[in-house]
Amino acid sequence: MVASPDAGRVLTGFRPTGPLHIGHWAGNVGNAVRLQDEGYDCFYFVADWHMLTTDYDRTDQLPDRVRTMVLDLLAAGIDPDRSVVYRQSAIPEVAEMALLLGMLTPLGWLERVPTYKERLRDLAERDIANLGLLAYPVLQTVDITIVRGELVPVGEDQVSHLEISREIVRRFNRLYGDVLVEPQALLSETPLIPGSDGRKMSKSLDNAIGMGDEPDAIRAKVRSFITDPQKIRLGDPGRPEICPIFALHRRFSPDDVSKIDATCRTGELGCVECKGILADHLIDELAPFRERRTQLEAEPGYVDDVLRSGAERARPIAAETLAAVRAAMRFA
Amino acid sequence: MVASPDAGRVLTGFRPTGPLHIGHWAGNVGNAVRLQDEGYDCFYFVADWHMLTTDYDRTDQLPDRVRTMVLDLLAAGIDPDRSVVYRQSAIPEVAEMALLLGMLTPLGWLERVPTYKERLRDLAERDIANLGLLAYPVLQTVDITIVRGELVPVGEDQVSHLEISREIVRRFNRLYGDVLVEPQALLSETPLIPGSDGRKMSKSLDNAIGMGDEPDAIRAKVRSFITDPQKIRLGDPGRPEICPIFALHRRFSPDDVSKIDATCRTGELGCVECKGILADHLIDELAPFRERRTQLEAEPGYVDDVLRSGAERARPIAAETLAAVRAAMRFA
Repeated sequence: MVASPDAGRVLTGFRPTGPLHIGHWAGNVGNAVRLQDEGYDCFYFVADWHMLTTDYDRTDQLPDRVRTMVLDLLAAGIDPDRSVVYRQSAIPEVAEMALLLGMLTPLGWLERVPTYKERLRDLAERDIANLGLLAYPVLQTVDITIVRGELVPVGEDQVSHLEISREIVRRFNRLYGDVLVEPQALLSETPLIPGSDGRKMSKSLDNAIGMGDEPDAIRAKVRSFITDPQKIRLGDPGRPEICPIFALHRRFSPDDVSKIDATCRTGELGCVECKGILADHLIDELAPFRERRTQLEAEPGYVDDVLRSGAERARPIAAETLAAVRAAMRFA
Repeated sequence: MVASPDAGRVLTGFRPTGPLHIGHWAGNVGNAVRLQDEGYDCFYFVADWHMLTTDYDRTDQLPDRVRTMVLDLLAAGIDPDRSVVYRQSAIPEVAEMALLLGMLTPLGWLERVPTYKERLRDLAERDIANLGLLAYPVLQTVDITIVRGELVPVGEDQVSHLEISREIVRRFNRLYGDVLVEPQALLSETPLIPGSDGRKMSKSLDNAIGMGDEPDAIRAKVRSFITDPQKIRLGDPGRPEICPIFALHRRFSPDDVSKIDATCRTGELGCVECKGILADHLIDELAPFRERRTQLEAEPGYVDDVLRSGAERARPIAAETLAAVRAAMRFA
């Protein structure tokens, strides 16, 4: 389906945490490509300032990570002619608007955000209880509203993440007049993609299959996945509903999935063969990514050009929104 | 005493809360003029963004208040040729640097700042527990360090206010290298100036004598001051040490103060006459202010010109500091 030209402006930020893996591809990155191809007016930014909320003490990795993220997004199919691709920190207007919005954002709202508490807990061994982490939702709100983003793709479990941004916008508009666009959630499919240990696929858990992995690496990683522990040898009946490999088949082997389900249950299909089928599909699906990634990486200056041109398109919009915000708050 | 040309850069921010009163004149405003006249390299800014930490919901008053503050400072003797006078919000680099410094500022440091708790308590009936209020010390740190302020005039009871800025600077320099100048407190005399009700003089308590008050208004306000409640009529002995009028004599009647002290104690000096002496001194001391204030107000565009020229001098320094900060954090 192709959206109409006034389908709306979509906004997504990508934290440059490292190379993309197939969990991203099945989730927000794949969605970003699809929405672009459906004709939405897409603004996609690399959230480098957001990285500081957890990684302020390891910024030496930041330049490489930003470059990697841009190359990966472009190789995945984000087209910088159709989508506006930029770096968050290239839009200084974002910082000023965040300062202004922070002045009217109740601390209680921020302290109640579930991801804030989760991050504090998950990274308890590190020293991240800083102002920037608490202020994260304000910066997110600015990211969206400063380019007048109308639609923010989220999975079903993330709708609440957007709610605080909607609340901040409503509070601003109530105090100063109807200036900001209240963003809406765009529900997007985000199937759970497990990693080799059965937990959610994540670079930090070292259980991920990278989008840029070579075929041999993909085969080796797929082989290392856990499966149903009761299915030990060929002939044992398996339970696809608890098997991480089957979860990947659902997304990456759509034409084979019912046959795999049936033959796994009867024991006819063994795990070695089943993993081979998945690896074949993954290798096929990721081949164009690897090819484009290699081409793009060879073009000197390409990433910089894309980011410069994206910032040139995003900044005038941001400047216009900031000017309206300043005027409404009597700073004009 | 005139400071040597390399005496150091002094930084003070003035919250545009309303017209200056004689408490300001005896305190930070008088100090600012003196430091300028002693040859320090002075940066004086109107802290309009800071006003949002308590007055985000009454910004309609902001443009007038900023203009009033600038006119008052200039009339008080701040010379925009010698001192750099600018508006905080005219330096957008401040906002970006505040975003960056917030990423490494522990919440615990901010929550422990005494003025944060005081403000929350004093303004409990209003809705000010916002992110901006908590983040205030980060913005203050940027105000100082972005123009490489070395000296911050503070009263003895305010030395602790600067400590958090020094801590944030040390933390930044430890994490990213020696980029920021650690500011020092410049201890300045800030005599306690009581208002008509004996409490600290303050516009919000409606107990203040404005620097621009007309002679008749000064006389009437001085007459309304409480004095020693045991001194009821001429001849009663008074206790200067508990009398608000005597506290003002200390600052505004230095040549008469010992005689007033003696004759009040004997009862020879009555309160009516004593207040008359004070009013005379105040009217004399404030006359040049009123005159300059009237002249300056009559020059169309003068305030705007001063602020524009101040921003033109401050911004390149701010941009240079921000560039160094970005580079150190790997955002260059």
